[in-house]
Amino acid sequence: MSSSAKGYAASSSTDALTLIKFKLKDLLPDEVEIAIDHCGLCGTDLSYIKDKFQITEYPFIGGHEIVGRVVKLGSNVTDLSLGQKVGIGFYRGFCNSCSFCNSGNENLCSSKESTIASYGGFSDKIRVQGKACIKIPNTMNYKDVSPLLCAGITVYSPLVEYNVSQSSKVAVIGIGGLGHIAVMFLKKWGCEVTAFTSTESKKADALQFGADRAIGTYDTDEKSHFKEYFDLIFNTIEEDLNWNELLNLLKPNGRLHFLGLPKNKISFDIINLLRFQKTISASIVGSPSRISKMLNFASKNGISPETEHFHFSDINKAINRLKEGKVRYRAVLSWNT
Amino acid sequence: MSSSAKGYAASSSTDALTLIKFKLKDLLPDEVEIAIDHCGLCGTDLSYIKDKFQITEYPFIGGHEIVGRVVKLGSNVTDLSLGQKVGIGFYRGFCNSCSFCNSGNENLCSSKESTIASYGGFSDKIRVQGKACIKIPNTMNYKDVSPLLCAGITVYSPLVEYNVSQSSKVAVIGIGGLGHIAVMFLKKWGCEVTAFTSTESKKADALQFGADRAIGTYDTDEKSHFKEYFDLIFNTIEEDLNWNELLNLLKPNGRLHFLGLPKNKISFDIINLLRFQKTISASIVGSPSRISKMLNFASKNGISPETEHFHFSDINKAINRLKEGKVRYRAVLSWNT
Repeated sequence: MSSSAKGYAASSSTDALTLIKFKLKDLLPDEVEIAIDHCGLCGTDLSYIKDKFQITEYPFIGGHEIVGRVVKLGSNVTDLSLGQKVGIGFYRGFCNSCSFCNSGNENLCSSKESTIASYGGFSDKIRVQGKACIKIPNTMNYKDVSPLLCAGITVYSPLVEYNVSQSSKVAVIGIGGLGHIAVMFLKKWGCEVTAFTSTESKKADALQFGADRAIGTYDTDEKSHFKEYFDLIFNTIEEDLNWNELLNLLKPNGRLHFLGLPKNKISFDIINLLRFQKTISASIVGSPSRISKMLNFASKNGISPETEHFHFSDINKAINRLKEGKVRYRAVLSWNT
Repeated sequence: MSSSAKGYAASSSTDALTLIKFKLKDLLPDEVEIAIDHCGLCGTDLSYIKDKFQITEYPFIGGHEIVGRVVKLGSNVTDLSLGQKVGIGFYRGFCNSCSFCNSGNENLCSSKESTIASYGGFSDKIRVQGKACIKIPNTMNYKDVSPLLCAGITVYSPLVEYNVSQSSKVAVIGIGGLGHIAVMFLKKWGCEVTAFTSTESKKADALQFGADRAIGTYDTDEKSHFKEYFDLIFNTIEEDLNWNELLNLLKPNGRLHFLGLPKNKISFDIINLLRFQKTISASIVGSPSRISKMLNFASKNGISPETEHFHFSDINKAINRLKEGKVRYRAVLSWNT
């Protein structure tokens, strides 16, 4: 039942990716094989390529925003069919028996397996648990679904998790892969959206994506008008900010939520949480069922990420653009562009 | 309508308190006058006496865990009656018109007034908004209610605010004024309670208060058995801890909640929140309606703080015991002991 595949692999933390051939593992009864059409490129892939977390095994094939078609079905998979268009996000499988799996929170399962823990989506084929596959609504723009499977669910999940109200005032710090989708989702969620960006040219883009205003991330003057203004702040950037100052932009009961990793430890005074019952939290992605709801929300509201398309053979070009901060706003790799 | 009162005042950040006489302000239509019987002594009073927050005006009269009887009623107060036994916590009044006041979250009102912003409860009389008064159930031990009005509501409020489940595993760091009541409430709430204390003699006390186990706050060996164990950690101590290590004791979706102020900034890596969707939050006290529910919960479950009683004339002795960490577990001052 094994079959051969090809994918773009890093052989070290510094080399460019090269096309390699590999054998797929035997298809397990609860697995499916997917013929990959598109895969998004995420900052996390780059972190793994350069072994930021010191867990990368080379050759390493990244890619965890996979869009493709079911081409083989394991004997236990009953809710998918051959030819079906599906997405796979950051996780390729779960224990399916712990309290988190049993309550629809598979992304919190301690035994979950990352899609890129073995060869990921920069390939032409992948075998994953049927449970990890999310059906793609026919109404969606198939070639632009990829970024929703990691970036999209990452910005959507907190809206559900923390009962974000339609009348909330929300700030999004950083208008990039995550931030631009956050603005889209928040606007359609009904929120008032303030974009923070340090790139002047992105201010107009942010308004285009639906932001009510765009201000400079480091513009202390502009920020001074927003003291105790926001119910929620999404931080998507790596740079250090003045965390105490940022907490002061939150209303009582407000939340500062991290959707990415700052380069350094964060440091602040607890009194800035305590006096007005504020919260700091962080999360990534979400469960398959929540991804499915997110896709339906996006489809219903005409949300589609802003993408740049590359043929897989140009993957190193795409990676370099991402490293240089030039991608507007999410790169998608395709076998047939 | 003015009348005279007496109270124990600090005349500077270092002097012992002395008894002074003062005039009460005119009684407003929405206010009541309370004849004070008992008042708890809280660490926050000491912080104000020594001007930790640089807002103290001398002479300063602390005291915000007030128990007494209504002796005068403002013309607009209809839901209290003369002679009624009431408690007053950290706030003596609210704007009563903002979104927080209108939704039963008066403690988050930006215009709320602290009980100790003018002369507080180390007095024989006080005038406060009727709205700030909480009726004391007749079933309660009147002379031991005081500590519930600040310490009690501080540990109770997060249980409601964050929907703490009856099956939660909770750690309480620090068995003092707050911590000992936290153990009592959590146990009656149905939780499994682990007490952390660095004082050997308090371990047995913690078990007495209802803890399922007590371990050393700095005992790395013991703590290593509790990796990803707790749904919730309450931190009540001022000392610096290894915050990254502490976050690792939380289950996925877990919360580290501060009920007091660490001496220094806290610092940690966001990845310790992000990977498993964890949260850091902080709060103090709660609204009058929540204090009322807390008192009913305490009454129904026979929860009564462990107290040391002092006559008001011994207030400096009580303060010294608190400064030396000797109070077991909350000091209450009374005009008639």
